[in-house]
Amino acid sequence: MEMKKTGRVVTFSPGVSVLSYAAVGGRQEGEGPLGSHFDEIDNDSFLGCQTWEQAESELQHRALEAALQKGGMTAEDVDAVLTGDLLNQCVGGSFALRNEPLAVAGLYSACATMGEGLALSAMLIAGGALKRSAVMASSHFCAAERQYRMPLPYGSQRSPTAQWTATAAGCCLLGREGDGPYLTHAILGRIVDMGITDATNMGAAMAPAAIDTLTALFCSTGTKPQDYDLIVTGDLGKIGRDIVADLMGRDGFLLDDRYTDCGLLLYDRKRQDMHAGGSGAGCSASVLCAYLLEGMGAGRWKRLIFAPTGALLSPTTTFQKESIPAVCHAVVFSAQR
Amino acid sequence: MEMKKTGRVVTFSPGVSVLSYAAVGGRQEGEGPLGSHFDEIDNDSFLGCQTWEQAESELQHRALEAALQKGGMTAEDVDAVLTGDLLNQCVGGSFALRNEPLAVAGLYSACATMGEGLALSAMLIAGGALKRSAVMASSHFCAAERQYRMPLPYGSQRSPTAQWTATAAGCCLLGREGDGPYLTHAILGRIVDMGITDATNMGAAMAPAAIDTLTALFCSTGTKPQDYDLIVTGDLGKIGRDIVADLMGRDGFLLDDRYTDCGLLLYDRKRQDMHAGGSGAGCSASVLCAYLLEGMGAGRWKRLIFAPTGALLSPTTTFQKESIPAVCHAVVFSAQR
Repeated sequence: MEMKKTGRVVTFSPGVSVLSYAAVGGRQEGEGPLGSHFDEIDNDSFLGCQTWEQAESELQHRALEAALQKGGMTAEDVDAVLTGDLLNQCVGGSFALRNEPLAVAGLYSACATMGEGLALSAMLIAGGALKRSAVMASSHFCAAERQYRMPLPYGSQRSPTAQWTATAAGCCLLGREGDGPYLTHAILGRIVDMGITDATNMGAAMAPAAIDTLTALFCSTGTKPQDYDLIVTGDLGKIGRDIVADLMGRDGFLLDDRYTDCGLLLYDRKRQDMHAGGSGAGCSASVLCAYLLEGMGAGRWKRLIFAPTGALLSPTTTFQKESIPAVCHAVVFSAQR
Repeated sequence: MEMKKTGRVVTFSPGVSVLSYAAVGGRQEGEGPLGSHFDEIDNDSFLGCQTWEQAESELQHRALEAALQKGGMTAEDVDAVLTGDLLNQCVGGSFALRNEPLAVAGLYSACATMGEGLALSAMLIAGGALKRSAVMASSHFCAAERQYRMPLPYGSQRSPTAQWTATAAGCCLLGREGDGPYLTHAILGRIVDMGITDATNMGAAMAPAAIDTLTALFCSTGTKPQDYDLIVTGDLGKIGRDIVADLMGRDGFLLDDRYTDCGLLLYDRKRQDMHAGGSGAGCSASVLCAYLLEGMGAGRWKRLIFAPTGALLSPTTTFQKESIPAVCHAVVFSAQR
C-alpha cells in the first residue's frame, strides 16, 4: 500500500477499506430524515443509564459493538480504537472502553473528531502500524447543553444561529483489505481563527477552517468540486454552509448542489425546529455511518468528500472573551480502490 | 524504515529519530532538581498573559518555538503537530496553534498525552505519512486547580496522597532522519479501571494501567527490566510508583533502582512540600524534554522506557461516584538506531 504526500494531502493507493460501520441515535435523530438509516434508535435519553454522561458512553459502546458485529469481528480483531467526544476530559470514549481488550488513542478536535480519527487511522493502516482500526465519536444533547450552555430545566431560549447537538455516535472500522468503500485521501486541518466571538454562531466561526482545508484538498489533488458526487462538511449548519459556498464560489470553486452539510442532513430543520441545524461530534460521525457510507455501498455516490469541522473553544475561553479557533479535517471516500 | 508488530508493540528499525526538544516551566519547576535543565523558566504564573489558561497556551507556544529554533527549523519544516493538555476542550494546544501554518491533531490521554503523541507520531513517520512531526503537551497548576478542584484563593488543604500539577510544557520533534536518540518501540495502552474512586489518589488509580502496559512491553519484546538503563513512568508519584514496583516484582519483573517516575524527578518532594509528587500532562512532557533526552544525548543512559500514565476521569464523573479509568502509553528510546 503506497502513500504519497502532495502539499498537505496524503494519497493512499490502493485506498484504505471501510470494513464495517454503525450508528446509534436518540429520539430526535430517529424522527429526522435519516432515522431509518440508523442501526439503533433509543428513545430514552438516558439509554438505561443513570446520567446523560453515562448515556453518551453507552452510545459509543453500542456503536462499536454494532460495527464489530456487522463486520463479523470481535474486539480482538481490531488493533486500536481512535475515539473522541465533547465531554470535559473526553470521558465519553474513555468510559465506553474501560477494561476492554483494546488499545486506545484519545482524540480531540471537537465536532471534527471523526475526520481526525479517519485521517490518522488511514495513515496508520497504510503505513503498516495497524491492520484494522475502529474510529468513533459521539455527542449527547443533554450532556452538552448543561456542560457548554445552561442546565436544561432553565428552558433557555436559543438564538436563531444556534445549532442542536446530536445525541448520537458513529463507529467506522477501517482495514488494509476489504471491499470498500475506500478512503483514498486525507488531510489534517490547520487551526483557523478569523475573530468570530459569538459562541451561538459556530457555523460562522468554523466556515473559514472548512474553506482552508477544502481549498488545500482541491489544489493539492488537482481536482475541482465537479470531480466529486457529494461534498459534505459537518457541522456548519445552514449559516456556515452558505458562507462556505459563497466564499469558495468567489474563489472559483463552484460547489453548487453537490455540497451539503451533516448538520443539514440529520434533522428536518423546520419541522423539528432545529434553528441553524445539527452539530456535535456525534452529528458528522453518525451521518457518515448511518447514511453516507451506506449510500456509497448502494452506488448512489461514487466519490465523496467528508470534511467535519470543529470549534475549538471552551466555555472558559468564551467567558475570557476569546475568539473561536476552528479546524476542519477532510477525507475522500471512493467506490474504487 | 521497517515496522513490525509483535503483540501490541510496534518496533521501528531503524528507530525514528529525535530531532530536537525543549521544555518550559514555571517557578516551582525552576526551583526543583531539574530547574537548570529547562530551556526557559518563567517565574510569572501568567507568563505575561491575562489568564492562567492563556498562560498554558503560551507555555506550549514557547516550547514549540524553542524546539524548532534548537533544531534549526521553522514551522514549515514540520508536517503536523500532535498536541494535548488537561484543560476542558484541550484549549491549551488549540489556542497555542491558532493561525499557525501547521496541521494539527488534537490528542487526549490526560497526563499520558505525551506518550500517546510520541507513539502515534513514530508510527506515522515510520509508515511514511509524515516526514517530521512535533509532539507536545502541557499543564498549568493554577488552571488545573480551579478546573479540577477548588479556586486557589480557597487555600484548600491537600491530602497526603495528592500530587502537584506541573506548570510546564515539553515539545519533542521527531523525524525519519537524524542523529538520535531514537524511538525504537511504541505501545498504545488499554483503559484499565480497578475500581479506585479517590480522586485525590491518582497514583493508585493509574498504577494498574502502567503495570498492564509495561508487562505487555516486556513480554512482547522478550526483554526484562535489566535490559534498560532507566524506566520512567509518569506521573504516578510516590504511591503509584511503589505500587507498580511491588506488584511487578511479585510477577517476576524486578524494577529496582532503575525505575523512577516523572512525578518524583520534577520536584524535591520534601523541600518543596509536594506530597505524593508531581503530575499533569506537562510533568512527563517536560521531564522528558528537559532531562531524559538530554541525559541520553550525554550518554548517561543508553536505553530507556518512557511510560506516561493518565487518569481519564473528569470532575463530573467523580461527582457521579464513578471509579477512575487510566491509561499508560509507552515508548522506548535508544542511543542506537
